[in-house]
Amino acid sequence: MEANRLLIKNAKALVGVHPAGTGRVAGAAMATLPLLEQGWLMAEEGIITAMGTDADWPGITDWNGLEVIDADGRYVLPGWCDPHTHTVFAAPREGEFVDRINGLTYQEIAAKGGGIVNSAMRLRGMAEDDLYAQAKLRLEEMMRQGTVAVEIKSGYGLDADSELKMLRVVRRLKQTLPMQVRATLLAAHAIPPEYKDNRSGYVDLVVKELIPRVAEEDLAQYVDCFCETNYFTVAEMERILEAGARHGLPGKVHVNQFTSIGAIPAAVARHARSVDHLEVMQEADIDALKGSPVMPTLLPSCSFFLGIPYGPARKLVEAGLPVALATDFNPGTTPSGNMNLVVALACIKLRLLPEEAINAATLNAAAAMDLGAELGSLTVGKRASLIITKPVPSLAYLPYAFGQDHIDTVIIDGRTVRTGEAAA
Amino acid sequence: MEANRLLIKNAKALVGVHPAGTGRVAGAAMATLPLLEQGWLMAEEGIITAMGTDADWPGITDWNGLEVIDADGRYVLPGWCDPHTHTVFAAPREGEFVDRINGLTYQEIAAKGGGIVNSAMRLRGMAEDDLYAQAKLRLEEMMRQGTVAVEIKSGYGLDADSELKMLRVVRRLKQTLPMQVRATLLAAHAIPPEYKDNRSGYVDLVVKELIPRVAEEDLAQYVDCFCETNYFTVAEMERILEAGARHGLPGKVHVNQFTSIGAIPAAVARHARSVDHLEVMQEADIDALKGSPVMPTLLPSCSFFLGIPYGPARKLVEAGLPVALATDFNPGTTPSGNMNLVVALACIKLRLLPEEAINAATLNAAAAMDLGAELGSLTVGKRASLIITKPVPSLAYLPYAFGQDHIDTVIIDGRTVRTGEAAA
Repeated sequence: MEANRLLIKNAKALVGVHPAGTGRVAGAAMATLPLLEQGWLMAEEGIITAMGTDADWPGITDWNGLEVIDADGRYVLPGWCDPHTHTVFAAPREGEFVDRINGLTYQEIAAKGGGIVNSAMRLRGMAEDDLYAQAKLRLEEMMRQGTVAVEIKSGYGLDADSELKMLRVVRRLKQTLPMQVRATLLAAHAIPPEYKDNRSGYVDLVVKELIPRVAEEDLAQYVDCFCETNYFTVAEMERILEAGARHGLPGKVHVNQFTSIGAIPAAVARHARSVDHLEVMQEADIDALKGSPVMPTLLPSCSFFLGIPYGPARKLVEAGLPVALATDFNPGTTPSGNMNLVVALACIKLRLLPEEAINAATLNAAAAMDLGAELGSLTVGKRASLIITKPVPSLAYLPYAFGQDHIDTVIIDGRTVRTGEAAA
Repeated sequence: MEANRLLIKNAKALVGVHPAGTGRVAGAAMATLPLLEQGWLMAEEGIITAMGTDADWPGITDWNGLEVIDADGRYVLPGWCDPHTHTVFAAPREGEFVDRINGLTYQEIAAKGGGIVNSAMRLRGMAEDDLYAQAKLRLEEMMRQGTVAVEIKSGYGLDADSELKMLRVVRRLKQTLPMQVRATLLAAHAIPPEYKDNRSGYVDLVVKELIPRVAEEDLAQYVDCFCETNYFTVAEMERILEAGARHGLPGKVHVNQFTSIGAIPAAVARHARSVDHLEVMQEADIDALKGSPVMPTLLPSCSFFLGIPYGPARKLVEAGLPVALATDFNPGTTPSGNMNLVVALACIKLRLLPEEAINAATLNAAAAMDLGAELGSLTVGKRASLIITKPVPSLAYLPYAFGQDHIDTVIIDGRTVRTGEAAA
């Protein structure tokens, strides 16, 4: 078999050249995005083997199986990592979007049978193959937009069979798509109608049946809970996180989207991997995160679409914390899997600097799903999963010119998944 | 020469099939977007000659020079019209974007020598060919995104030679690109530094020299003025509109972006074609527009990027007025020419219904630049300038799934300018 070898030469810069071992960047360090100007990068069998600048170019001695891409003044960036999505779902919900334009609230739509429960009712009746086929189209579009790793949650099943069905779909996506896929059990996304008068019975089902089974079958790497007024209480989340911990599934939890009810200190105390959303934060929430390894993950596309406050990115960074970014792609509140737009929103709305936003969408986003050893930066030994931009005048131009498609080429594990002019 | 004939068959629906003669839609009528489900459309020499549904399909008898596109369940819409842009400029200004993230205000950036005057200083030194080449790339990207007609303003010259240079660039774009191009003289975009202590001298230059010369050489169809606190006064705008009227150049004016200072009643009284921006509106401004033929034009991408209020679209529609949409593409406050995103913002942020937003970006946008007789709807006798979408479940899906590229094929005057799967 021919070797799979790749050389990218003549880049305007290699971006995100973090030294090996840097698992995340926090606070003031987020503004530093190491570059190699006039760079070249070599990969073999999908792994970055060498990088440098024109000045230290060793020349090519072995042409065996070598694909050469002339980046010709374009930037090379680590591919986007998207550590919070709900990309497996039964159907888009644009009807509810029109309901909202007509003035209905999120709560009124839920009362009409919309929202998460609506998605669950549709999904329960849907064949695994159909769920897989639809999700695959969504993920292929996300790869074209530069995403090389994604976390996908269950949570539209809300019964044992349907939650497991969703996680089997995620496993199949992981097996068939070139991108890295991580799975999260989000059975505690809403109380299903059958358990409306028996909340603890549903939490029992999650804790005693689903978590052990999912762990045993290795169907997920994380457990999640929508800890929010009218959804799950802090005490319920704590039970779920503790059960997850017993079975090797750390928490990635939905917290502080609409209200601050103590979920963050509780999640930090129970060693969650990440706390996600964070639109409504009190000082005590920020204090609880200080000194912890928990990754605060912001979802600005959700704020954009719902018109709710944006997460306090600057406050987090100024408190010395790291920030990761994700799309939150889901049919109700964030019908978009576009990480480029997330990076633009992070600069335009969260007031992150372009360097901070890129670090948040690559290095820190990889760390938020324990992929920091293999993705998130251009580092020798990591996967050659990267984006080659179109010719753009600067890195700041990427979030600035927010309505354009800046991506020329996308490469995952050394293989081109979107071919642009650079690779042609 | 072979005939240029086009048949689009098998559309999920032909959208925006307004009867001939409907120049614009206003008030409650904006929510009606006439459709032909399961439609077909014929064009000859770039003009729509017939349309219908599968039920009344006459069959093809003459195959001479006929291109057949199977829309295969996709929507066919009139191409976007973009009646307010500044797409001829010297360079992007992403450095100022970073300044704003770092906390500088629009006013502080202007004081540093940024803003409009910054753009003017760069443009004055730039060769006409370079300006043309850059603008052409921007307009080609906009055509790929479905825009078939565009208005382009001068206003980064701020002296006679440079304003005329910009308008010659616009004329060349009009001559060489397939899209329809309309030109507007916006010499009154800012007071140039040379006239800082002689405002009336600059307005004299505009009124006595530029307007007559531009009209005589047919370099523009409209005249514009940035009527705003710290820019041009209402009295100065009135002089400019009156001079324009004497020379056959109606007004398309920048008003009420930051303050309401009486510009709208003054523009209505002087028969402006459109009043644009409208982020800050008082009841008297809305009242002045009632019963007038002036087109209120909203620019939601500008509000998005600057974080200023969005225009009160619902109030305008509820007052019985029409609304048009445009990008405002410019390097300082709106670095995006993407009308799809404008339509999404119109629904997500202005709370227009999808039908209202599509009417605003087609029929009413065409009317805002006097192109209603030839563009803005799928109507026999109008130009065959249209968009074929990717397969999407509904029209509401277009603004709902805001981060995706929904366009498969773009056709201008019967000729394909972006080839997708439908045309392949």
